[in-house]
Amino acid sequence: MKCRICGAKAVIYLRQHNLALCEEHFISRFEREVQKTIKKFRMFDRDDVVAVGISGGKDSTTVALVLHKLGYKVRGIFIDLGIPGYSAFSRNKVQNFAQKFGIPLEIYNLKEREGESLPEIASRRKDRICSMCGTIKRYILNKWALEIGADALATGHNLDDETATLLSNTLRWDVGYLAKQHPVLLPTHPKFVKKVKPLAFMTEREIAVYAILNGVDFVNRSCPFSKGAKSLRYKHLLNEIEVQSPGTKLRFYREFLEFQSKYLKPVESEPQLKECKVCGMPTTIDVCSFCRIFRRGV
Amino acid sequence: MKCRICGAKAVIYLRQHNLALCEEHFISRFEREVQKTIKKFRMFDRDDVVAVGISGGKDSTTVALVLHKLGYKVRGIFIDLGIPGYSAFSRNKVQNFAQKFGIPLEIYNLKEREGESLPEIASRRKDRICSMCGTIKRYILNKWALEIGADALATGHNLDDETATLLSNTLRWDVGYLAKQHPVLLPTHPKFVKKVKPLAFMTEREIAVYAILNGVDFVNRSCPFSKGAKSLRYKHLLNEIEVQSPGTKLRFYREFLEFQSKYLKPVESEPQLKECKVCGMPTTIDVCSFCRIFRRGV
Repeated sequence: MKCRICGAKAVIYLRQHNLALCEEHFISRFEREVQKTIKKFRMFDRDDVVAVGISGGKDSTTVALVLHKLGYKVRGIFIDLGIPGYSAFSRNKVQNFAQKFGIPLEIYNLKEREGESLPEIASRRKDRICSMCGTIKRYILNKWALEIGADALATGHNLDDETATLLSNTLRWDVGYLAKQHPVLLPTHPKFVKKVKPLAFMTEREIAVYAILNGVDFVNRSCPFSKGAKSLRYKHLLNEIEVQSPGTKLRFYREFLEFQSKYLKPVESEPQLKECKVCGMPTTIDVCSFCRIFRRGV
Repeated sequence: MKCRICGAKAVIYLRQHNLALCEEHFISRFEREVQKTIKKFRMFDRDDVVAVGISGGKDSTTVALVLHKLGYKVRGIFIDLGIPGYSAFSRNKVQNFAQKFGIPLEIYNLKEREGESLPEIASRRKDRICSMCGTIKRYILNKWALEIGADALATGHNLDDETATLLSNTLRWDVGYLAKQHPVLLPTHPKFVKKVKPLAFMTEREIAVYAILNGVDFVNRSCPFSKGAKSLRYKHLLNEIEVQSPGTKLRFYREFLEFQSKYLKPVESEPQLKECKVCGMPTTIDVCSFCRIFRRGV
């Protein structure tokens, strides 16, 4: 197969666009598409500081790298959760990645900063570990982004993530979630940083190829705690449909955003936010979930 | 497994309801559920005449039978499309079925009434045969229901059909279709008969079991023309989800109807209907699709 633009040897064939591209033209197309998403959804500007939580996987390294290559002011953070056989391995890759590409990186060690690692917390609590881990990471990322004065917090959510979530929300017709799912989540409190998903229209496959072509040595093992997640099933199902009808995922997400803007007004009755009695961060309860997890003020 | 109601040997386990039932209690539950659907959506009353197109498959025989057993005035019609190795075989089964249960039945022979069988029409036209067949059957059913003064035209659409259609419409976020998909389609013209789907909340499996337990000898082969239909893929995918999360299909459809009633007002800009110059039936064009298929007035 040959690149449709220059005729050189193609490295990828994008079935949904019936488009074969060489390395150079795939990379430039990828960056152009991400740039278009940033502009279209007014995610951030040239002068803005963009915070990125870098776990070391293909998505978070790619979002950091592509924003860096596009000339944005990227600041990275790696949250070391202390998961044996996973966190140290990932930290090492992220440090190498940041150094290689010249992306400023901070390491946040949960055990050192909060007194306990994730497995230690999990061992004394009944909550599902993945949901707790989500709470912890969201809290730390937001607070850190706020502290460094970031204008936006970018995540690596890709088209496969977004459509799997969308399918899940749609199967339940959960209006609350459907009204909110968007490439941009505007802050509902001065202590929340705007959240953006610059890779929302790029597939996992495009992202992995982009990372590989750019020489990113990303973490390819999944977290030992994340077995049999429901979202994986929906991804698998959407991939089955995609094979038969290329472009389904992209259309599903794009048309949804159109539909949402016309029919689903943002829910007005947002829960009232107050500030956590312990840490002062926004919460709907007296003591926020993060402080509760670490047994503070309860 | 034992019947949850009487402790007798169960004939079916309904995973989505965590409910095992014996023959008697499965049948009575099935009929009660269909009755609930008829009432909830105000499909028709005791005095109404309900027309049913009976193809001979499990769905159309079951809808005719359950309505008959519930005491409604059912009138059946079999449309003989003249498909070799299929139509005559099906007609025979439908005639036996109608006789066995005492359901009034008419036979409509396409070749005799309109001059050509479906394969004859298909051989001289480029259109997809399934879409043509749909046009022909919808036209004949509606016209016949109108002629016999039926108050409603019931079809055998089941939960698997409805959710497959819903998934297809949702993947495209096709608001026109989403706003219309409903167990009841009210007539938009005096020459249209109200269309109703009394089995919309029953799964294919429940319907097949109901038919078998009632001694219905239904047609179990599919039409030779209906290979690889897209709806089969969506059914298959939904079944995969259903296996993992029993009740998904029912919730998907039920919650959708709730969602629809709140967020999707029926499209006001319905195409203007006029009467076909040839046959006088409602159409958006000068000569209706049915007349065009049979080369009348064009």
